[in-house]
Amino acid sequence: MTASPLGVTAPAGFRAAGITAGLKASGKPDLALVVNDGPLRHAAAVFTSNRVAAAPVHWSRQAVSDGRADAVVLNSGGANACTGALGFQNTHATAEHVAQVLRISSGDVLVCSTGLIGEQLPMDKILPGVDAAAAQLGTGSEFDGGSAAATAIMTTDTVSKQAGFAGTGYAIGGMAKGAGMLAPGLATMLVVLTTDAVVEPAALEAALRGATRVSFDRADSDGCMSTNDTVILLASGASGTVPDPDEFAAGLTAVCTDLALQLIRDAEGASHDITIRTFNAASEADAEEVGRAVARSNLFKTAIFGRDPNWGRVLSAVGTTKAAFEAENLNVSMNGVQVCRAGGVGEDRNLVDLSGREVLVEIDLAAGSAEASIWTNDLTHDYVHENSAYSS
Amino acid sequence: MTASPLGVTAPAGFRAAGITAGLKASGKPDLALVVNDGPLRHAAAVFTSNRVAAAPVHWSRQAVSDGRADAVVLNSGGANACTGALGFQNTHATAEHVAQVLRISSGDVLVCSTGLIGEQLPMDKILPGVDAAAAQLGTGSEFDGGSAAATAIMTTDTVSKQAGFAGTGYAIGGMAKGAGMLAPGLATMLVVLTTDAVVEPAALEAALRGATRVSFDRADSDGCMSTNDTVILLASGASGTVPDPDEFAAGLTAVCTDLALQLIRDAEGASHDITIRTFNAASEADAEEVGRAVARSNLFKTAIFGRDPNWGRVLSAVGTTKAAFEAENLNVSMNGVQVCRAGGVGEDRNLVDLSGREVLVEIDLAAGSAEASIWTNDLTHDYVHENSAYSS
Repeated sequence: MTASPLGVTAPAGFRAAGITAGLKASGKPDLALVVNDGPLRHAAAVFTSNRVAAAPVHWSRQAVSDGRADAVVLNSGGANACTGALGFQNTHATAEHVAQVLRISSGDVLVCSTGLIGEQLPMDKILPGVDAAAAQLGTGSEFDGGSAAATAIMTTDTVSKQAGFAGTGYAIGGMAKGAGMLAPGLATMLVVLTTDAVVEPAALEAALRGATRVSFDRADSDGCMSTNDTVILLASGASGTVPDPDEFAAGLTAVCTDLALQLIRDAEGASHDITIRTFNAASEADAEEVGRAVARSNLFKTAIFGRDPNWGRVLSAVGTTKAAFEAENLNVSMNGVQVCRAGGVGEDRNLVDLSGREVLVEIDLAAGSAEASIWTNDLTHDYVHENSAYSS
Repeated sequence: MTASPLGVTAPAGFRAAGITAGLKASGKPDLALVVNDGPLRHAAAVFTSNRVAAAPVHWSRQAVSDGRADAVVLNSGGANACTGALGFQNTHATAEHVAQVLRISSGDVLVCSTGLIGEQLPMDKILPGVDAAAAQLGTGSEFDGGSAAATAIMTTDTVSKQAGFAGTGYAIGGMAKGAGMLAPGLATMLVVLTTDAVVEPAALEAALRGATRVSFDRADSDGCMSTNDTVILLASGASGTVPDPDEFAAGLTAVCTDLALQLIRDAEGASHDITIRTFNAASEADAEEVGRAVARSNLFKTAIFGRDPNWGRVLSAVGTTKAAFEAENLNVSMNGVQVCRAGGVGEDRNLVDLSGREVLVEIDLAAGSAEASIWTNDLTHDYVHENSAYSS
């Protein structure tokens, strides 16, 4: 994966830019533009299932419903969530302005926002920002517009996040920002994926849903779901290659998984990156439910922070699920040491080394042959600090 | 309520004791006995719905299924959970020993344990402890056995918890230990309630389920469910009074609510006691689901710790539920200030004073006339400290 060109301008047919519009008090880049120059302008997207969705989510969900998108404009420094009718008008005005500058239809412009909830965007900065970004649009070869865009969507991210996949005659690229453990009101994940493969909108959507289901949906840093989460996939067709569907699905999943793991690794306040692998489950859904229950147990997460291989807290969380298992058949390993065997005490828990950043918890449900992994973080003093007002 | 006699020996027909068996390294009391001297020995109980239930839960669930219990033995200093066949044998042996000493049937002895998961109980201390407790059994009038028992079931509780209700011609008493935010592996709630009213087992069970549903079930300190949670209600009939069913239900609910709020107030590591009242809901279940979602949002809980009236995090949590509402109709008040109005910005959030310990969040779903309150705590540095191994 690392050998592949990275980012949204790695595939042919895309230009991007990231500039400073002045939305962030820090003066860092805060507005990004990604443009699909075609010849195809197919698109698919998945959005937060939070019913309190931000204005740009409402706009983009409608705009992409015809399977076409020519451009995506993204801003950090303000989520435009819980902002009422004026908030939606501002999203609409942003799309109109992008359309005017690029000479496209506003209905083909998707909008993403991230930042504080409950505040209106400063449109006197957004609109000139769009002009500035449009003037700087670059492809992957002539100017690294993709990297500039990836930087401009950061909020409390400490590093920008890009990934890429080299398919047979085509490429896939992507950028992401965010994760759970973020500063007040900023807990949003935004992702833009691009490909120069020739893929119809319906197939794009199927591939995107399949990839997000086993990647972003399984990164559960702190169980909190944002009002703004958006994952967009654009296809330019510029390679002229109709990809093998299986290879395309696998490549897209690889890019999404790479980005999801980058999000987990950059989760603020975390001191451990935890993989919870549930196996021998009766179904994949069971395995996912079990992993998510453990990932959301504050008692488990604080134990890992304290380097305490407290398997009783794992079992307590497993016991709250509806998954098929018998308590007396459960086995739990932590970093390779089977601390719980047949529902009771197993190997000596003092053998478990939790001093490193990576933690692998393996839960054997002894109920079937399915498995799934959930990625999460520990619950630390820094998490509390970052997310309380004391951090501001 | 405070005027009523408190504890399990407040009603007539009960004796209790609390002694030091030597289970706790601290040398503090760790074994309690509550005995129903009749004439009736009716009982009902509710247990954790965690499928990884401790040995005493398995035993007591079976023992109380005939509606009769003569005695309850409780120990702190060890949960007897995830302890396999030997753990169950130890619970059985404890019940047998209590039965022998009190000359009753072991099938009428309920057992409760609390403490670390995954360790066998030291039976060489438990059994002599039962003898010592039986020798000290006292009623409310001659010796405060109820208070001694309430002290012996404490784990990381900083104060013992008792409550009482004076009915018309009868009394209800109770004791409790625990809450969410506790030290490693100790997160268990144990409650014993007593009454000298004449109530048949089926009516006892109905009253108990009704009372716990709106009291203990709504105290959601950190969303973690124990392997050992148990609430037991014993009726001696010693008053000879057949109570008015409505008064009895209300009295029992009052005692349970009093104890539940004592648990929340004593939650370790908490700096705020939070009531989340959801009103104008389409159903009580909707109101409860919304309150629980907010109570389980780590982003919301850290904001309250930071005295940050971050209503966006309340709305984000509400949006994850299936409750009936329209986002643009939601109103949220924090300590009386309506910070969110019609899904957008309301009164100035700087007017909200979160410096006190009590926090009231009121969520208006504008979807009906039902309501429910959930009680929780904030997420603090002390919570992380108490629950990580660094605390030991």
